[in-house]
Amino acid sequence: MENKMNEFTEYWYHQTLGLRVKIKAHLHSEQSKYQKIDVYETEGIGKLLTLNGKTMVSEIDEFIYHEIMAHVPCAVARKNSKVLIIGGGDGGVVREFAKHNDVQSIDLVEIDDRVIEISKKYFPQCTSALGDPRVKIHARDGAEFIKERKNYYDIIIVDSTDPEDFALGLFTEKFYREISEALTSEGIMMAQTENPILDEFEIKKFYDNLRAVFPVVESFSAPIIIYPGVYWSFAFASKCFHGTDLNPDSTKKNKLKQIEKDCRWYNSNWHIGTFALSNLHRKQVGM
Amino acid sequence: MENKMNEFTEYWYHQTLGLRVKIKAHLHSEQSKYQKIDVYETEGIGKLLTLNGKTMVSEIDEFIYHEIMAHVPCAVARKNSKVLIIGGGDGGVVREFAKHNDVQSIDLVEIDDRVIEISKKYFPQCTSALGDPRVKIHARDGAEFIKERKNYYDIIIVDSTDPEDFALGLFTEKFYREISEALTSEGIMMAQTENPILDEFEIKKFYDNLRAVFPVVESFSAPIIIYPGVYWSFAFASKCFHGTDLNPDSTKKNKLKQIEKDCRWYNSNWHIGTFALSNLHRKQVGM
Repeated sequence: MENKMNEFTEYWYHQTLGLRVKIKAHLHSEQSKYQKIDVYETEGIGKLLTLNGKTMVSEIDEFIYHEIMAHVPCAVARKNSKVLIIGGGDGGVVREFAKHNDVQSIDLVEIDDRVIEISKKYFPQCTSALGDPRVKIHARDGAEFIKERKNYYDIIIVDSTDPEDFALGLFTEKFYREISEALTSEGIMMAQTENPILDEFEIKKFYDNLRAVFPVVESFSAPIIIYPGVYWSFAFASKCFHGTDLNPDSTKKNKLKQIEKDCRWYNSNWHIGTFALSNLHRKQVGM
Repeated sequence: MENKMNEFTEYWYHQTLGLRVKIKAHLHSEQSKYQKIDVYETEGIGKLLTLNGKTMVSEIDEFIYHEIMAHVPCAVARKNSKVLIIGGGDGGVVREFAKHNDVQSIDLVEIDDRVIEISKKYFPQCTSALGDPRVKIHARDGAEFIKERKNYYDIIIVDSTDPEDFALGLFTEKFYREISEALTSEGIMMAQTENPILDEFEIKKFYDNLRAVFPVVESFSAPIIIYPGVYWSFAFASKCFHGTDLNPDSTKKNKLKQIEKDCRWYNSNWHIGTFALSNLHRKQVGM
């Protein structure tokens, strides 16, 4: 990370490339118990949240990540009643799950409650559903929390930072096994799995870890403008195959249609299309 | 564009964002009749060609752009005999078309022959098919060249720079009409149409121009790591609907399979999936 007076840069791909972001104001900066948290008002992409100098949320594209993390699993799952989100303290994924009437409870487990508080102040459009009576916030380590629930959640989302430091444990076979145990027999999990073109973290090993635990492991992509190299991959894993090729459940068609209308990114056609991978993407995730 | 000793930056999105690229060596720099041409040896993404300080071709991802520009139209077209490429002096699109045995002639119309010569020296992997007997190179303005051929080409590719300066004419209704006239009655054209998320050039107007001329106009996307914001859109336009929802022609299945095997990005499933657009993409291109 480099921070000149009117510019922020995040370097990536082994520090060989970087995204420069021109800033109007440095709105907030603090060292929490876990990480350095900064908020910038940028010139082009609205407000930007960074953790340890890494871009996490921006106003220009937060909807893409948040919509797909909630609507892809909800469209496929037999049951959406109980949802767990690990990480995601900005609240954006909660906001999207809250749009589904059949979601009965959302547990948000964010290790750093300062991320939640700062998001409430600077990204109120993301945190708007955190006061929903279905939402319970747990300021705890997700890797610990997951051990306490067995055969309980219908959907678990791992909304983590990069596989480094305290988030490294969120990409291991051990963790995926605990997630599997916390899921019901038809449960679904999803996780962000980095950029497969600029494959700095060798994502195949994360997919190998998933395949060691889940019978169904797939991958898809969506662009996140502020993330390293933009082309972003997501893992979809399930304890049993729902029999419809990962396509949205046809019995949910009318209900989904209403939600899709309000979405800025997600729709069922895109959902189907994004699981059709390029040769590169297939190779990088070991498919 | 900013060029510090060991770094290259291209600014975009109204100069509010920029891509930094660490460089090992500045291999070449010249002012041609049309533009400034530079070649860098970078630390992370191999050699990089820029025109007027804008990233054009890099070794890490050139295959994505070049494969899709050739194999998407070849998979759909009834006939692939005669191909015209406007721009694309790096030769990468020619290389991919040359893999199709039923392509009988490829006209490459590049206004700046220095781009071709420099690509031959620094990107021989791209220019490898320029010596193919089916290929004819024309160092001319594409907007002029197109007026001379009527009802002739099966496929026309507009491999242009941004809609600025001398390339602005390549995004007008007038130019699209001349392309349509140069195509046979079942002809297909494709063009790069910028980043729909960071919509600096208001791409809807280019799609409106296409719709004013072609009965079939579609859009799809692919990531180009070195382009502004990576998420890149492409227009697909046809003079008549081939009746297969833009999917690869089933009669070509076996032939395509062989080509796909050697592709690093393209395959028929990805081809089908990429035409399923997000809400944002649909809106930005006016669909």
